[in-house]
Amino acid sequence: MKRIIKNATIFTQNENRDMIEKGYLITQDENIIEIGPMDQYKEIPMDAEIIEGDNYLITPGFINAHTHVTMTLLRGYADDLPLWTWLSEKMWPQEDKLTNEDAYWGSLLSIIEMIKSGTTTFNDMYMFMDKTAQAVKESGIRACLSRGLQGPDDKSLKRLEENKLLYRQWHNEAQGRIKIMAGPHAVYTCEPSYWEELLNMVQEFNMGIHTHLSETRMEVENCQKAYGKSPVQHMLDMGVFQHPVVAAHGVHLTDVDIEILKNNPVSIVYNPGSNLKLGSGLAPIPKLLDKGVNIALGTDGAASNNNLDLLEEIRLAALLHKGFMEDSTVITAQQALDMATIGGSKALSWKEIGSLEVGKRADLTMLSMKESTFYPKFNLMSHLVYSSHSSQVENVMVNGNWILRNKELTMIDEEKVIFHIEKIKNKFQ
Amino acid sequence: MKRIIKNATIFTQNENRDMIEKGYLITQDENIIEIGPMDQYKEIPMDAEIIEGDNYLITPGFINAHTHVTMTLLRGYADDLPLWTWLSEKMWPQEDKLTNEDAYWGSLLSIIEMIKSGTTTFNDMYMFMDKTAQAVKESGIRACLSRGLQGPDDKSLKRLEENKLLYRQWHNEAQGRIKIMAGPHAVYTCEPSYWEELLNMVQEFNMGIHTHLSETRMEVENCQKAYGKSPVQHMLDMGVFQHPVVAAHGVHLTDVDIEILKNNPVSIVYNPGSNLKLGSGLAPIPKLLDKGVNIALGTDGAASNNNLDLLEEIRLAALLHKGFMEDSTVITAQQALDMATIGGSKALSWKEIGSLEVGKRADLTMLSMKESTFYPKFNLMSHLVYSSHSSQVENVMVNGNWILRNKELTMIDEEKVIFHIEKIKNKFQ
Ligand SMILES: [Zn+2]
Ligand SMILES: [Zn+2]
Repeated sequence: MKRIIKNATIFTQNENRDMIEKGYLITQDENIIEIGPMDQYKEIPMDAEIIEGDNYLITPGFINAHTHVTMTLLRGYADDLPLWTWLSEKMWPQEDKLTNEDAYWGSLLSIIEMIKSGTTTFNDMYMFMDKTAQAVKESGIRACLSRGLQGPDDKSLKRLEENKLLYRQWHNEAQGRIKIMAGPHAVYTCEPSYWEELLNMVQEFNMGIHTHLSETRMEVENCQKAYGKSPVQHMLDMGVFQHPVVAAHGVHLTDVDIEILKNNPVSIVYNPGSNLKLGSGLAPIPKLLDKGVNIALGTDGAASNNNLDLLEEIRLAALLHKGFMEDSTVITAQQALDMATIGGSKALSWKEIGSLEVGKRADLTMLSMKESTFYPKFNLMSHLVYSSHSSQVENVMVNGNWILRNKELTMIDEEKVIFHIEKIKNKFQ
Repeated sequence: MKRIIKNATIFTQNENRDMIEKGYLITQDENIIEIGPMDQYKEIPMDAEIIEGDNYLITPGFINAHTHVTMTLLRGYADDLPLWTWLSEKMWPQEDKLTNEDAYWGSLLSIIEMIKSGTTTFNDMYMFMDKTAQAVKESGIRACLSRGLQGPDDKSLKRLEENKLLYRQWHNEAQGRIKIMAGPHAVYTCEPSYWEELLNMVQEFNMGIHTHLSETRMEVENCQKAYGKSPVQHMLDMGVFQHPVVAAHGVHLTDVDIEILKNNPVSIVYNPGSNLKLGSGLAPIPKLLDKGVNIALGTDGAASNNNLDLLEEIRLAALLHKGFMEDSTVITAQQALDMATIGGSKALSWKEIGSLEVGKRADLTMLSMKESTFYPKFNLMSHLVYSSHSSQVENVMVNGNWILRNKELTMIDEEKVIFHIEKIKNKFQ
């Protein structure tokens, strides 16, 4: 199946960050096979879907590099609490009530919100990941999934087995839309002996690692008390960084930590909304960028954010440090968009996504530029980052298929999902 | 004309901040004449429009307490620059090219965006205010307008005359939807002799004052150099605070400043988006709230924000201090909504708006709660502030009239406005 989009404005996010003001893009099956300015377009008779892209902006599909989709079931359940209280007193007791079936519907609820706001790939760590994988398969979205690991305790070996099974059953499945990583939760929930065990699995399967790192001041202090070093140093010493690591947060980092991150295959996932809402703090993103550490962008779970709109995180990423450093020149609009696209691709070691180039997967987001927020059209990058709304997302393609078309989900029955969410809600009251 | 909305969830924003989970609201002409829970609703035959409010959330219309609507003409024209450079090198030279006619279309462009995102009242200071008043009259929105004043220079007396004329022609006009204030720009653009003159006008007309105050570190330092005191102390000493003052920003305030604000009829308009984007800093809102200083919320102009979506500012207000103070309990969702409603009403001394109560003006915003972002429905205040999008705004009423109905503007021809905006854009290139 071929699709041809004509006359669109395209942010390629390629090496040169080329912006094509009036361009075309051709997909065949799951790939991009042509992209360029309209004056290079050759009208060749072929059996293809033609899409008029005039007054539309096309970006690579956004990559939400850290989230917990099932947790959307607890959106708004508890607000305005410190991370530890929120996690131990509110989230964990409720999570015990969750079933496999709940996770399936919760995952779909999150996927609905992500697709509608232009996200084509997400990176998730939680329980019941088999059901999340099922939701990913059915919905047409792309995802990197890990079984959340904590231990040692009486279930920690079972969790490891689940992570392995997840890999065997789902890695590269769903037309290659699913990848599996290992999901050690954090240094404060995994003891060194457990890290050793899970790193054996990582070694055996040649997996990537998705973890939380230096999210709160307390986490860092407790790590210092327990091991006499920072979480970053601790992970380095345990050999964690001998594998590619996607580390969520990185809020409380020393200069030495940043030097270690720079010298190892670690990407930091910046989660500005969640870090603000939970009172965790502000990650030193300009410093990390200066050192050349790869930065991706995430929403974290909707129970802490409380939404999964990556465009909102892009805006926060571009705004926050300007205000807090009292310097309006730090983190440009372009850098913020990079985090949500090519930065995510690098973090997930998923080189086929994150930019619009020949040979890459056809994952893209089409935003209408007809909204008043896009006028006057002085600077489209500025408008995308500072003025647009995710409601301007009209079409979303993953692997060459439309999963949102004219704002309608093509693969998910939204009403049915909401019906089940309402039912599940009752068990938490 | 009577209108009856049934079965809606209503955030009244009254003294007790009552939330009616399943309520009704009746308007007659420009006023609210009944409001309460559905079980108190009496079916009386009357000639009225009936609106089904099931799965809708009704809030008082948002009050954007500081903006410059004409400046939307320069949205995205210059980004990532310090305030002074941005203002003196980018904005002012371009502003010289603006005409009365441009201001009319620019005002309408802004009004379109504000209405669609639930704003029913805005507070503006700029040039060409007669044209902005015309746009307010035609569009059905409510506004408080001031002629921006700077001086002394060869045009400063003319500006004063324009402010007076604006008052004579427009104060309480358009079915009472327009009020006029004095608009001294700031202490760094108005010299003491000019303040004296403009305060005479304020005295004569019994006007309120809309000004900028302590927006940047440089403004405060320069004021210290010139007058040996802070901008707050300087205004106090000049007698500015003998009148009701709406002061935009208040980013750089000392404890002494805050004490002065507390003891005078001054409201601070918090503009989180603009203060971040221009690198101005973070206003000490929790301290101001503690002291009992009234806080309103604003977007500032779209040339610096770069949008006019007050729901986004509500979210920023609730999020920023949590992150920066590393305390997830500061500024609750309720407090953030207060700033955008009742806080704005107090700031503008416009007691007929800002809450939904019998006898007040029928200014309200209806948001659909059918979006996935509103599920599960654990906490609607939390969802409004942390999860919703302004695209959920479906209906907006001002003075008892629908100015947005089923997402369609009832009073403005949007296509025509966009057509003129495109034309005006060419002169800035
Ligand atoms: Zn997380
Ligand atoms: Zn201003």
